[in-house]
Amino acid sequence: MTAEEKAYKVVSKMYDNDPFSQWLGIERLEVGPGHCRLRMKIRREMLNGFAIVHGGITFSLADSAFAFASNSRGRHAVSIDTSISHMVSLKNGDIITATAIEEQLGHRIGHYRVEVRNEAEEMVALFRGIVYRKSQEWEV
Amino acid sequence: MTAEEKAYKVVSKMYDNDPFSQWLGIERLEVGPGHCRLRMKIRREMLNGFAIVHGGITFSLADSAFAFASNSRGRHAVSIDTSISHMVSLKNGDIITATAIEEQLGHRIGHYRVEVRNEAEEMVALFRGIVYRKSQEWEV
Amino acid sequence: MTAEEKAYKVVSKMYDNDPFSQWLGIERLEVGPGHCRLRMKIRREMLNGFAIVHGGITFSLADSAFAFASNSRGRHAVSIDTSISHMVSLKNGDIITATAIEEQLGHRIGHYRVEVRNEAEEMVALFRGIVYRKSQEWEV
Amino acid sequence: MTAEEKAYKVVSKMYDNDPFSQWLGIERLEVGPGHCRLRMKIRREMLNGFAIVHGGITFSLADSAFAFASNSRGRHAVSIDTSISHMVSLKNGDIITATAIEEQLGHRIGHYRVEVRNEAEEMVALFRGIVYRKSQEWEV
Repeated sequence: MTAEEKAYKVVSKMYDNDPFSQWLGIERLEVGPGHCRLRMKIRREMLNGFAIVHGGITFSLADSAFAFASNSRGRHAVSIDTSISHMVSLKNGDIITATAIEEQLGHRIGHYRVEVRNEAEEMVALFRGIVYRKSQEWEV
Repeated sequence: MTAEEKAYKVVSKMYDNDPFSQWLGIERLEVGPGHCRLRMKIRREMLNGFAIVHGGITFSLADSAFAFASNSRGRHAVSIDTSISHMVSLKNGDIITATAIEEQLGHRIGHYRVEVRNEAEEMVALFRGIVYRKSQEWEV
Repeated sequence: MTAEEKAYKVVSKMYDNDPFSQWLGIERLEVGPGHCRLRMKIRREMLNGFAIVHGGITFSLADSAFAFASNSRGRHAVSIDTSISHMVSLKNGDIITATAIEEQLGHRIGHYRVEVRNEAEEMVALFRGIVYRKSQEWEV
Repeated sequence: MTAEEKAYKVVSKMYDNDPFSQWLGIERLEVGPGHCRLRMKIRREMLNGFAIVHGGITFSLADSAFAFASNSRGRHAVSIDTSISHMVSLKNGDIITATAIEEQLGHRIGHYRVEVRNEAEEMVALFRGIVYRKSQEWEV
């Protein structure tokens, strides 16, 4: 099995059993070792009291991208710390894309960066995540 | 109107129009100037591919607590940066409480800290948020 | 050897061989398992182009407090991620105190928080750090 | 005065009056609107108790790069929050370079990212900073 195939299978296994990513309506556009690209559409029940998207929704999309990208390397990876800055507001009907890339991959620690962009390609949020990489391999 | 009354009215206005906080099932236990305490119950559609709660759910609860606490001061407050560390996993049926406190309140910038705890009072996540405080007052 | 004695010995070993903490003029006010309190005085060569203390100085004091507090548990602890917010400016001659406490101690991961305060007890900076705890014990 | 000239003049004014950047031995390799590249050499008095560079030194270099890049736009910019992850240890004699880029420039808020690399071009630290941009222009 190539690294590409393993990445694809791990993420499929995670995604197929992930009720919240499915509630969000996340689609996988691209998956590979250490990276992925996801897309979703903002719905009315995802808004907050300012009639813009709740910060937790953008975070959730980015966090899924981070989890997929870090686990796609084939070993179980658990989140140690994550942060997000919101830059542009989103409203009902907007479509957003999250692109996760690996900034650094160590034996035990991995660093990821996720950019969330809208249809106009503006950066709406910037997410950063750190994982602890367990010894345990994904069985796929 | 006292600071306590204003805090209560601002948060009510935010909460009554917040579809995502309502989807999460967030209850307000306590609201005051610069602080609040919220509670919610984990449901099956909030889980991820490891059968534990999706990181975005805990973040969302903490982010709502942060938004309520920072706006409760009476001026519009917008998130600049937030971070969260997850420490203990949550499963279907768990009940969690988020307590937001103000660490520092400046003229333009405010710092908040949110602890998320489970029924056993273990800290399951630690959230930190920074807001930019606009000049605009809440009309309540 | 009690936990208190071990903490004291580990930090002494670290401090006695730490040229930069000595250049800073750091004094230890208090050391115990998982916590410590340090003090230093701002000197002219620590200022930046605004005639206030360089952000790196306050960070360095807080980072030393974080390193001492996390290693004081007796196992080698290495920094994974740190953050700092500066709230109040410092000038030549100011005396500052950094108090490090443990927010959460897991088997592999530890979370620490350091408050830096001036003589008027105002919070001048708030630091947060996460360590990876190795299996290796300190020999003291 | 072009944006390039203004950036150069602002950073010169900051640097010429910055005793701590000078103690560090920081050299400017490149300065432009929203970005800069700095270099320094690790000396013995910059080490910690593990005989590797103190985390505060790498932070200080990155923080100077961040301050120069954000102020180079011509308006006074003050740090709101910064974070750093250390990935590779540095020892006496190592030469490091910090490259600051602008991730997002808003009217009031700016986001910067600084990569610190050693002579082998390995990423030794990754820094992220957020500024509040005042209305006040630099007089240069």
